[in-house]
Amino acid sequence: MSAKLNLGLIGLGRMGRSYADYIANRIPGANLTAISDINEKSLESGSKDFGVSKCYKNYQDLAADKEIDAVVIITSTSTHKDIIIEAAKQGKAVFCEKPLTLSLAEANEIKKVIEDSGIFFHMGFMRRYDKGYAAAKRKIEEGVIGTPVVFKSSSRDPHRPSLEFLNREVSGGLFADMGIHDFDLARWLMGEVASVYSIGGILAYPEMKDTRDVDNGVSTLKFVNGTLGVVDLSRNGVYGYDIRTEILGTKGTVKIGYLRETQILVMTEAGINHDTVPYFMERFGDAYITQLSDFVEKFMEGKNPAIACNDGIAALKISLAAQLSCDENRPVALTEINSR
Amino acid sequence: MSAKLNLGLIGLGRMGRSYADYIANRIPGANLTAISDINEKSLESGSKDFGVSKCYKNYQDLAADKEIDAVVIITSTSTHKDIIIEAAKQGKAVFCEKPLTLSLAEANEIKKVIEDSGIFFHMGFMRRYDKGYAAAKRKIEEGVIGTPVVFKSSSRDPHRPSLEFLNREVSGGLFADMGIHDFDLARWLMGEVASVYSIGGILAYPEMKDTRDVDNGVSTLKFVNGTLGVVDLSRNGVYGYDIRTEILGTKGTVKIGYLRETQILVMTEAGINHDTVPYFMERFGDAYITQLSDFVEKFMEGKNPAIACNDGIAALKISLAAQLSCDENRPVALTEINSR
Amino acid sequence: MSAKLNLGLIGLGRMGRSYADYIANRIPGANLTAISDINEKSLESGSKDFGVSKCYKNYQDLAADKEIDAVVIITSTSTHKDIIIEAAKQGKAVFCEKPLTLSLAEANEIKKVIEDSGIFFHMGFMRRYDKGYAAAKRKIEEGVIGTPVVFKSSSRDPHRPSLEFLNREVSGGLFADMGIHDFDLARWLMGEVASVYSIGGILAYPEMKDTRDVDNGVSTLKFVNGTLGVVDLSRNGVYGYDIRTEILGTKGTVKIGYLRETQILVMTEAGINHDTVPYFMERFGDAYITQLSDFVEKFMEGKNPAIACNDGIAALKISLAAQLSCDENRPVALTEINSR
Amino acid sequence: MSAKLNLGLIGLGRMGRSYADYIANRIPGANLTAISDINEKSLESGSKDFGVSKCYKNYQDLAADKEIDAVVIITSTSTHKDIIIEAAKQGKAVFCEKPLTLSLAEANEIKKVIEDSGIFFHMGFMRRYDKGYAAAKRKIEEGVIGTPVVFKSSSRDPHRPSLEFLNREVSGGLFADMGIHDFDLARWLMGEVASVYSIGGILAYPEMKDTRDVDNGVSTLKFVNGTLGVVDLSRNGVYGYDIRTEILGTKGTVKIGYLRETQILVMTEAGINHDTVPYFMERFGDAYITQLSDFVEKFMEGKNPAIACNDGIAALKISLAAQLSCDENRPVALTEINSR
Repeated sequence: MSAKLNLGLIGLGRMGRSYADYIANRIPGANLTAISDINEKSLESGSKDFGVSKCYKNYQDLAADKEIDAVVIITSTSTHKDIIIEAAKQGKAVFCEKPLTLSLAEANEIKKVIEDSGIFFHMGFMRRYDKGYAAAKRKIEEGVIGTPVVFKSSSRDPHRPSLEFLNREVSGGLFADMGIHDFDLARWLMGEVASVYSIGGILAYPEMKDTRDVDNGVSTLKFVNGTLGVVDLSRNGVYGYDIRTEILGTKGTVKIGYLRETQILVMTEAGINHDTVPYFMERFGDAYITQLSDFVEKFMEGKNPAIACNDGIAALKISLAAQLSCDENRPVALTEINSR
Repeated sequence: MSAKLNLGLIGLGRMGRSYADYIANRIPGANLTAISDINEKSLESGSKDFGVSKCYKNYQDLAADKEIDAVVIITSTSTHKDIIIEAAKQGKAVFCEKPLTLSLAEANEIKKVIEDSGIFFHMGFMRRYDKGYAAAKRKIEEGVIGTPVVFKSSSRDPHRPSLEFLNREVSGGLFADMGIHDFDLARWLMGEVASVYSIGGILAYPEMKDTRDVDNGVSTLKFVNGTLGVVDLSRNGVYGYDIRTEILGTKGTVKIGYLRETQILVMTEAGINHDTVPYFMERFGDAYITQLSDFVEKFMEGKNPAIACNDGIAALKISLAAQLSCDENRPVALTEINSR
Repeated sequence: MSAKLNLGLIGLGRMGRSYADYIANRIPGANLTAISDINEKSLESGSKDFGVSKCYKNYQDLAADKEIDAVVIITSTSTHKDIIIEAAKQGKAVFCEKPLTLSLAEANEIKKVIEDSGIFFHMGFMRRYDKGYAAAKRKIEEGVIGTPVVFKSSSRDPHRPSLEFLNREVSGGLFADMGIHDFDLARWLMGEVASVYSIGGILAYPEMKDTRDVDNGVSTLKFVNGTLGVVDLSRNGVYGYDIRTEILGTKGTVKIGYLRETQILVMTEAGINHDTVPYFMERFGDAYITQLSDFVEKFMEGKNPAIACNDGIAALKISLAAQLSCDENRPVALTEINSR
Repeated sequence: MSAKLNLGLIGLGRMGRSYADYIANRIPGANLTAISDINEKSLESGSKDFGVSKCYKNYQDLAADKEIDAVVIITSTSTHKDIIIEAAKQGKAVFCEKPLTLSLAEANEIKKVIEDSGIFFHMGFMRRYDKGYAAAKRKIEEGVIGTPVVFKSSSRDPHRPSLEFLNREVSGGLFADMGIHDFDLARWLMGEVASVYSIGGILAYPEMKDTRDVDNGVSTLKFVNGTLGVVDLSRNGVYGYDIRTEILGTKGTVKIGYLRETQILVMTEAGINHDTVPYFMERFGDAYITQLSDFVEKFMEGKNPAIACNDGIAALKISLAAQLSCDENRPVALTEINSR
């Protein structure tokens, strides 16, 4: 291993390109040594834009590259399992963007591979690295709000993804695709979830009728420790990317989230107006970078990853319970998901 | 009937005294002509403080007073039915503070009396008269946020009431006592509710263990038109009286609620700090006055009341469904409540 | 004197009518016993709208009315002196809306009359009674911001008054008409002013060229204790009535002021939007009422008025210095104004 | 010239180290090729921390290095002139942090050298590159606020610098050291300044009595086009780094500035609390990076610098006028400074 960690990035979609940019320019401890994408054009432009000479059409070749220390997986969810298995076979450290996978069976398979191979595996949940969420976590641990009793979280995308992606088999559905972030925060800030009840509907985009998904959903959570939670999700936050979380405790409450990008306020006869955060990279760009840096540092220092495979599985289970609950209109205990 | 409406106020507890003050000093179209309270001391101080000469220990005497045009009922909930019946018998108009009653059977009885007697009856839900809520209603009707799809509402009291009051038989429980305001807003802003699922727990005040009530609760609502709602309630908003509502539509969202009383911001090394709204009279005082004025005006102009007995019953049903759901951990359809 | 103070209101313009409404309906300790206005129509509608039977075309008759305990003067500034003299002659208590007068000579004449007659005289500066300003005053006195060192205040009207009023002989000019409020706050919160420097211009309303006034102005203040101040004034706050003040101390800062009327936030693709405070009665209505109540209470309890004639004169002097400075483009010491 | 611009950084104080970090890690188009500092320890740690092999104790050697394309000057102000002259002699492009120099004579000397040598020279005023200020500039140019008429700007440091630095000969005094940023914004957003009047005092730090400087100051500006401005400066913004600007126009106003670093709100019985921005790198870090990128790009593309030597001189003149005005308690025309 060189003084800098040599990273191979697999997946050069829009998000993969952001990761490439961050690795190439913002993570002093890492090199963007190789990239891989099945699309040759993406590979070419990636090579040029980020100055990477090693370009692999097949991720297997990247995983086999002896120069590569660690693999960053930003491909579509359905490919995560195979790539992780291949990377584990080659003994590479792995960073995998959320969600781990969409099925519990696959998730358990991945878990076994990681445990058997002993590789370093970091599950990507960037919100934990956001300054605001990190500060809230600290405040809670310092006891500022007393004992947390209610978790509230809201995620809204500024527009819906393509109908192709919205197919529940591809995206996993609203509760897995969007909710998994909030469910991860719920576990991180409150503890394990015991049961979920969800409602949802196609309320803003009637053209979604054949996707088997909903565009708005609300889940209530009962935590094992008896505390309460609620997560609301929407594809029609048309005014901007709106992510807000609040934890109410016995001595106070802490709120995370904001809605302004540039810090200007324009006041005219039309009222008082400010802009909004357009989308997730504007909101969480720094968190993605901090997370990647932490991945690099923890691995190089021989420490445990901050977010492990089990965290990916636990959030997935809540998503699956939320979906099942919405489908069957009944509360679903997490234990039921365990046994499926 | 004189040029001003002669009001008789029944109930001189803390809230009744606020009403007395408003009627005596803030409603130009009305006189505070008589007061009634079973507590003689309250009656004496009320007489003196608000300059009222007619003081009745029994509400029946007030209801029978020929000079009185209308009765304002601010007594404890369990007495509402009998007082309304008595007022109806005397043909008085009635303003009744929420909740109408705690049982559906009583509610239906009240309804029948009102219908049979033909009296003017206004159900007190002051939030509808708050400038912010009224403005939100207008924005929604103007189509500013498109079609409403998700209703979110949160109510937090700055401290718990007495254990005596918290007994579910007295208060009706968290979902009836506090939630009824949010449930009324839900109906007013979104339409009728089809089903409810609630969770709750004693999380902040362990001394409540014998009250059969919870101190925190979350209810999800499915509306008849397919839209979604969520209401969270807490007795431990220890930082202030915190009432917030949001309606997300297909074209935007509208938020109501604030947390500052005096408009100052203090910035020191300890951070940036502002105060909070202490409690409901500081927050909704103007709304109470506007509601009373509307009661007086509508009655004197021979119009229908803005909020009728049916509104009180409909909100009660949602509260009852929310409580039943919380007790039995299952979604409860409103039709189930109808048939009980 | 009856148990309630009998007030006679002189001047039924727009502002006078607000005062009439407040006295008639919002000040429990006072009656609106008589009104006076040179315009008969105003008198008629005032009589009807506020239920006043005693209507005087001449203020002298009102001042002579034995039933009247105190006179509230809301007429145009140029008439203040004569009315005060008349009221003093009749031994009435006087509340006079700002500004006291526009000339120092008249101000001193008024002062002498008040002193010689010994009448109770309250100078109207309602901002001191605003909850926000009052809270800021308390915070400062409690030492929360350490020693105050810089005073900043900004006043903006949502539109210009009529050209007729804007004539400097009528309005007194921007620094007297608008600035006097900020100059009064400056004295109240920081101490006496030693010198002023002002700049101004006709920048938004070219049609003002013959008024001898400016539509925007900025004044810097040196206080006697060495601290600093700045006041900016504008007639073109076209987005709303915008009044903000800040006091920076050695240990922190306190800001007063807000820009929202109804507490809703509308978020659409057009951005995040809220409304503004339209004008002064929406912003300071409660402060006017609190001030009137204080006038009534202090007088009835035999206490000194909270704001005296000297306060009116001191603020006037700063206004005159600000205007002279703007006219001659040089700093002007207050002592120079004293000797003119 | 290589594909990337090779930069030599002179000055490795606290701010120089931030620049080194940005150049090494955040500016894709540039290499941090060499560093220079008179302090050998700073040089050593800079070499190690930023991976730079070329380290020069004398800036002359760095300026003479053929590999270096451009020089970034972050030394103390008094050394700017000599370094610029040396760089110009070697034909290097120059980025110079504000202020250019503290005397008009030196400024003119620098200007002549730049013009004679024809080098590319960028004057560092990072606020122009802040997202908020850039957005405000666009809004103004789009006509959103109509014609700008009043400029208001406030700068507060969270604590005072060392007494050594505060000596007016070293820092240039409050109006040059801090105010120069606001004066540059004033020119950029409003146009040229015609005259200045300033007041100031030692109000928070009595130990500054021998520095010939003040810790608080207020300057009013008259612009050549007749519009107005006010800048207030303080060393005792003890609650955080507080930078705010507002431009009032004939059709509205635009405000820039904020006071929160992490986006959390903590609400307890102690009130509602959020943190503040600690200091300038937290507030303007991104703006420094954007400015450096712009310097690199403009130079490599053969364009003119966005901020030129003349901008540095113009802001300096306003600072000098502000200081002179404060010293002599009179308005000072900029033409007076020209002729000194």
